Amino acid sequence: MKHHDTPALPPRSAEDEAVLDAHIVREIEHNTPFQQWLGVKVQALQPTLVLRFDWRPDLVGHYHSGRLHGGVIAAVLDALGGCALMKGLAQKHPAETVALVRQRLTRIGTIDMRVDYLRPGLGQHFIGSCEITRLGARVGSTLMRLHNDSGVLVATAAASYIVS
Amino acid sequence: MKHHDTPALPPRSAEDEAVLDAHIVREIEHNTPFQQWLGVKVQALQPTLVLRFDWRPDLVGHYHSGRLHGGVIAAVLDALGGCALMKGLAQKHPAETVALVRQRLTRIGTIDMRVDYLRPGLGQHFIGSCEITRLGARVGSTLMRLHNDSGVLVATAAASYIVS
Amino acid sequence: MKHHDTPALPPRSAEDEAVLDAHIVREIEHNTPFQQWLGVKVQALQPTLVLRFDWRPDLVGHYHSGRLHGGVIAAVLDALGGCALMKGLAQKHPAETVALVRQRLTRIGTIDMRVDYLRPGLGQHFIGSCEITRLGARVGSTLMRLHNDSGVLVATAAASYIVS
Amino acid sequence: MKHHDTPALPPRSAEDEAVLDAHIVREIEHNTPFQQWLGVKVQALQPTLVLRFDWRPDLVGHYHSGRLHGGVIAAVLDALGGCALMKGLAQKHPAETVALVRQRLTRIGTIDMRVDYLRPGLGQHFIGSCEITRLGARVGSTLMRLHNDSGVLVATAAASYIVS
Repeated sequence: MKHHDTPALPPRSAEDEAVLDAHIVREIEHNTPFQQWLGVKVQALQPTLVLRFDWRPDLVGHYHSGRLHGGVIAAVLDALGGCALMKGLAQKHPAETVALVRQRLTRIGTIDMRVDYLRPGLGQHFIGSCEITRLGARVGSTLMRLHNDSGVLVATAAASYIVS
Repeated sequence: MKHHDTPALPPRSAEDEAVLDAHIVREIEHNTPFQQWLGVKVQALQPTLVLRFDWRPDLVGHYHSGRLHGGVIAAVLDALGGCALMKGLAQKHPAETVALVRQRLTRIGTIDMRVDYLRPGLGQHFIGSCEITRLGARVGSTLMRLHNDSGVLVATAAASYIVS
Repeated sequence: MKHHDTPALPPRSAEDEAVLDAHIVREIEHNTPFQQWLGVKVQALQPTLVLRFDWRPDLVGHYHSGRLHGGVIAAVLDALGGCALMKGLAQKHPAETVALVRQRLTRIGTIDMRVDYLRPGLGQHFIGSCEITRLGARVGSTLMRLHNDSGVLVATAAASYIVS
Repeated sequence: MKHHDTPALPPRSAEDEAVLDAHIVREIEHNTPFQQWLGVKVQALQPTLVLRFDWRPDLVGHYHSGRLHGGVIAAVLDALGGCALMKGLAQKHPAETVALVRQRLTRIGTIDMRVDYLRPGLGQHFIGSCEITRLGARVGSTLMRLHNDSGVLVATAAASYIVS
């Protein structure tokens, strides 16, 4: 038999959950200047985070090619993993107050990331999705995929984040 | 004893070399829209490529922190490796015409990259340097380091590029 | 309008395909001394490669823990990606003779690999599976997963391979 | 002005330091079954960890080539980073008892690793060296290099480890 010192607390109310979700979306879309410049938008928070952004001429790697710069792809995939862990942490701590979860979100930081550039970043818009492969007490691990608007797999990534 | 079918050709003239170097700098600073937006500048092409860029509010990861977004760091380090290979390819083919080397440069592409985020990206400007660990006939491998203006090691990266 | 010099050739016979499959299994299980020592066995070649190996005391990272050494996990995941590309190359060139495909297999080489160690490598046996995310003319990219016999995700990996 | 609750403790005695060093060498060479099988030997603990191992037929990737299996290279480079952090943690906590530092060593675990396979693993023996790029309170980051006995750079690696 397993004992816990703290009895299971009641989960956050649906209202609190909505407040927290709105906060996460604001963090992703507005409170991160570089992501705001990239134009990253949340398409879904659940069951996995899905982000979308549009092609723009200033995101391009070379005038001739029109392809997304690898750094833009890396930036979006890094944001994707970290933001997926925001929702993941909220779900892992269903009884914590909004304020406590919000504090957790500020402590997420990327340890390292690998990006695989598979196909040219060509398209009118792009969709990134994320799978959390583990969310431990100190490290979160994620796999990300970026597709273009024709469903072509443009890039994948794997990253580790510090969490607490 | 080793035979070569083709006799060693005379190396490019100093004038041609300067034309090629100017072309590489232009590619890095002006012909890549996203790098132009980042404000990446060449500080040295030899013996290893050194790039510099300044902190700006729109490169930041979160309003409160003032730290560079991880994606900005990834973008600069990706650019650094690819651009170091431009000069590397020019040096590997010292007898080729400027036109032929320029064609080689257009065929460089990132296969994959890992970034290690070591310390907060805080500072007024940042300096990236690159070591080519191998430049083969088909793949180039690089290690990159990003320091801030106080000499703090902010990030390292390793990347593989397709070359031909 | 696009021209092809070679008309579509008839695919290999079922007999040839079986010969090639047997060759691939032999390469994985017997012709690679270190994999033979690890005891890697092919469970399926299609639709994706699945490998299996058993826990053994000499594969352990530390006497006290009984957990697989990270290097054993890396070795199996590297083998997994390369071997999945063997079958992938055979499928990509359905009309080539067995001899020609066998030559392709000898030219596969790992460019780089990332491994994410998610959970302790504990179990009686382990199952590795592989997804080919791209198989180009020069580079093959793969994602691998290692589960233990209870279905726990122990590790994931991403790797790039040179192919031709 | 910065206050510390605990006054600076006297550093470990030279005798204790030698005991700890001997313990670290034993952990690397004897207490890790898979590393023992690989035949990894410590050449130097300071200023950076240097490991050595000999070529053997059962470490080979393919009978024809005689080259080290990529997994053997990955295993040695993973061991190298983790073991370098053992000495690093001892140096970071110069006043802790041998027993406390030994406890820290048991808590080191690889989060993830990238290996770049640069040149064939051919040679009679191989030398691995490690640079600790950061040793924080929770994560240690390392860069590793593997040379053969002719000084050829065979592989590099970057890895993150959980520490405490």
